Amino acid sequence: MKKNILIVPGDGIGQEVTAVGKKVLDKIAAKYGHEFTYDEALIGHAAIEATGNPLPDESLEKMKKSDAVLFGAVGHPKYDNDPSAKVRPEQGLLKMRKELGLYANLRPIKLFDELLGASSIKPEILKGADILFFRELTGDIYFGEKGRKDNGDTAFDIAQYSRYEVERIARKAFEAAMTRGKKLCSVDKANVIETSRLWREVVQQVAKEYPEVEVEHQFVDATAMLLIKDPKRFDVVVTANLFGDILTDEASQIAGSMGMLASASIGDGTGVYEPIHGSAHDITGKGIANPMASVLSAALLLDISFGMKQESEDVINAVDQVLKAGFRTGDIADATTPKEKILGTDAIGEELLSRI
Amino acid sequence: MKKNILIVPGDGIGQEVTAVGKKVLDKIAAKYGHEFTYDEALIGHAAIEATGNPLPDESLEKMKKSDAVLFGAVGHPKYDNDPSAKVRPEQGLLKMRKELGLYANLRPIKLFDELLGASSIKPEILKGADILFFRELTGDIYFGEKGRKDNGDTAFDIAQYSRYEVERIARKAFEAAMTRGKKLCSVDKANVIETSRLWREVVQQVAKEYPEVEVEHQFVDATAMLLIKDPKRFDVVVTANLFGDILTDEASQIAGSMGMLASASIGDGTGVYEPIHGSAHDITGKGIANPMASVLSAALLLDISFGMKQESEDVINAVDQVLKAGFRTGDIADATTPKEKILGTDAIGEELLSRI
Ligand SMILES: CC(C)[C@H](C(=O)O)[C@@H](O)C(=O)O
Ligand SMILES: CC(C)[C@H](C(=O)O)[C@@H](O)C(=O)O
Repeated sequence: MKKNILIVPGDGIGQEVTAVGKKVLDKIAAKYGHEFTYDEALIGHAAIEATGNPLPDESLEKMKKSDAVLFGAVGHPKYDNDPSAKVRPEQGLLKMRKELGLYANLRPIKLFDELLGASSIKPEILKGADILFFRELTGDIYFGEKGRKDNGDTAFDIAQYSRYEVERIARKAFEAAMTRGKKLCSVDKANVIETSRLWREVVQQVAKEYPEVEVEHQFVDATAMLLIKDPKRFDVVVTANLFGDILTDEASQIAGSMGMLASASIGDGTGVYEPIHGSAHDITGKGIANPMASVLSAALLLDISFGMKQESEDVINAVDQVLKAGFRTGDIADATTPKEKILGTDAIGEELLSRI
Repeated sequence: MKKNILIVPGDGIGQEVTAVGKKVLDKIAAKYGHEFTYDEALIGHAAIEATGNPLPDESLEKMKKSDAVLFGAVGHPKYDNDPSAKVRPEQGLLKMRKELGLYANLRPIKLFDELLGASSIKPEILKGADILFFRELTGDIYFGEKGRKDNGDTAFDIAQYSRYEVERIARKAFEAAMTRGKKLCSVDKANVIETSRLWREVVQQVAKEYPEVEVEHQFVDATAMLLIKDPKRFDVVVTANLFGDILTDEASQIAGSMGMLASASIGDGTGVYEPIHGSAHDITGKGIANPMASVLSAALLLDISFGMKQESEDVINAVDQVLKAGFRTGDIADATTPKEKILGTDAIGEELLSRI
């Protein structure tokens, strides 16, 4: 197959990990006889520095035209410490999500057996946990009107959802549940907020189309607790943008480290594949970032955007083999890992490539 | 001392656990020669059933006149499954918080050593963790305008914060940090939402008054992860209403069980003391609810509202002694707990009383 892949590394370790993800795609193309062509585009702080705009039109055009996007991360401490900054790297990310209509963010949470010891959660609690999150990605408080009143002394943000927005993500989540454990947990805060009450109403309606799926509704606070107490009780989880942001970061501890978690953002056009970790400026440039999340994002890209199941599994197997061989990056090493098995970004990338 | 305590059990297990909390207060009064008088008031589903109103004026008047309130929980599955219900138990709770000006909700998260095994988190990660949360309680998306548009097809909620609201909770948190480890973590989502940017601005300003306190700002998603990965890195945490709701429920796993966690809601008038757990209708009426959170809420009441430090410590010691003697309720029992040591609500209450 001929495919055109856009590489959008973004900021911080996004650059380092995406380079490994790309090499993996290249190796897959060579092995299976596909023809992957690549282009690059700017976003985030890198784009602001070059053009003043966190998502230049040129980048957006390239995204729309490509067959899939391999994305890194955006963010920079400069803006975090300056609450009054008008232009921010994250605006580029949010605009990309909105403009590409990426309303469904899939975040599979599954622990590689070899990493049972790497988590702060007890192995017996984790073993067998396998959760697929569907986070709504183009609505909620992220995209509503926001601003200041009273001479800047009062700030407001409007959270908003319309019926069709909940319907389409709910349907995607139910479809996925049908191919898995047939359990779906919808997370909201319907005891307090109105968008959540609409959310629950719509999920209850869509549920009628999937009588085989066992549905539960949980409040977000209870879910934050249950994810740690008993992660095995979950199969598919569907939730709003903000709750999904918080819960999936939390759930990264189920997978041992944020450095292992990939995500797919899909909608009606080009799909975007990215680690759930951020730009991590504290470790940027040190060559120690874990590239597995980017590599696993490449695996999701192959599977979901290109329908290349075998190729995708090949990548996941390579990750598994590298872990089985005992290699680790710092974030997933534990007290039992011998020093010489702790590798940097490129070295563990080489181990991965040699196993594809 | 003469004090007038209002007991507000609310719904579900609120009734069962508050009864034990009250007995503990009684025992303390007898031991230390205080004169505690009690009254009761309705709230939540119980109040709706009796009066049609989740917080009748009579209850509110009694709260305002009392020296402190020992609160249970509100909620009922009936409303949770009916997103269109107009009158809800939670409205009573929210109105109480607003009318009493309870803007600061303190949630101390500390593990009793005997419960190291009861958590799903590894003991070596937990040992020594000691966090004091300050959750803002009368603002944010909880109290902003909310409603429907487009014939009910679009729902919205407005999150809002004013400078003074952030200032007063921040100051309380900094004051507490000064008496503890002198570290404060402020949690927001300033990379996306405007209320968070105001929040961060104000916390940065208040921080200048406390140069000895080491301050960090974290995003809520990263915090949800770090709480599980490394709870020991936190001392005082201050955050907005919704983020506080989610993060403190999650943090209950640091304390072994939600059934162990007490909270104090304070402001300018009467203080309200309550477990952080909910009404738990799944176990209501079975006599198995853990009353320790209510008992520890009574300890906070004695300390914060009445300034009775020694009495408060006496209660906490009793909890510690009961745990040391090996007694557990079901939620904090583990595989090593002998059957005969697993007690119901009243029986463990008796063990507590006999140790005061
Ligand atoms: C960087 C930030 C805007 C973003 C979000 O909140 O969506 C990130 O946390 C994520 O989860 O992709
Ligand atoms: C019952 C509910 C409205 C309440 C809240 O969200 O504040 C509860 O979860 C709490 O934390 O006290």
